[in-house]
Amino acid sequence: VPPPEPRDPKTRKADTLAKLREPNADVWVATAAGDPYLVPLSLAWIDERAVIAVQPGSRTARNITEHGRARLGLGPTRDVVIIDTVLDRVTGPDDAPIADGFAAQADWDPRDSPGYVYLVLRPERIQAWRESNELPGRTLMRDGSWVV
Amino acid sequence: VPPPEPRDPKTRKADTLAKLREPNADVWVATAAGDPYLVPLSLAWIDERAVIAVQPGSRTARNITEHGRARLGLGPTRDVVIIDTVLDRVTGPDDAPIADGFAAQADWDPRDSPGYVYLVLRPERIQAWRESNELPGRTLMRDGSWVV
Repeated sequence: VPPPEPRDPKTRKADTLAKLREPNADVWVATAAGDPYLVPLSLAWIDERAVIAVQPGSRTARNITEHGRARLGLGPTRDVVIIDTVLDRVTGPDDAPIADGFAAQADWDPRDSPGYVYLVLRPERIQAWRESNELPGRTLMRDGSWVV
Repeated sequence: VPPPEPRDPKTRKADTLAKLREPNADVWVATAAGDPYLVPLSLAWIDERAVIAVQPGSRTARNITEHGRARLGLGPTRDVVIIDTVLDRVTGPDDAPIADGFAAQADWDPRDSPGYVYLVLRPERIQAWRESNELPGRTLMRDGSWVV
């Protein structure tokens, strides 16, 4: 069967935001420090920022704080959103807007366990596509600004 | 509801191999060249190797051929397989075992389009888990050898 028609830009943006705000959303977080690293983590989307909760000594935390960048992938792989991000700030359980926002979207609360920090990641580029007929127009955000 | 009981090692290995051999399997491929890079690609599992098809000029191909490593993630993120790989070899459409094996598992054949090469990736470490109660025992292969 042929794939469905490509979505128009506004639908694609709305679908992407819905995916980012989905309860219990998970995200593949790719980081690097020489070698590539990749783990699945809970995602919260708060005020146009991608927020993850990590232990400061984890490899993901160290790679991002040292290198400043992460690339995020949300699946399934034939309905993807890919986000290039830069580290905006590291914050903790006392940061109520972030901590409450994270707990509201995720199915767990990092404040229930000791030691977690939140990495607040600012998106620079967001791409979204389903089948190859959606590769044209896949860039929804460029240089931190929505283009649709 | 509590998560199901953790799987025993042999079940986990069998589930992992089934996932790697699944028709139309897709994989998140994380590579690095300074910045982290991440794309979803079709996966074939041939003779204990992870095989992807890429254009030689793509960023994934260049990162892997220059750096020698890729980290692969198969989702969904609460039933994951993560594979650390090293580049075994780059091969082409004339390599029948690889090209035929790839076309047999994927839902497309790179030989139908010009320019594709196959990156044959040798797994060094394979981890698999569902919920956090499966984090113990998540390493199924270490230093290229199955430990279960």
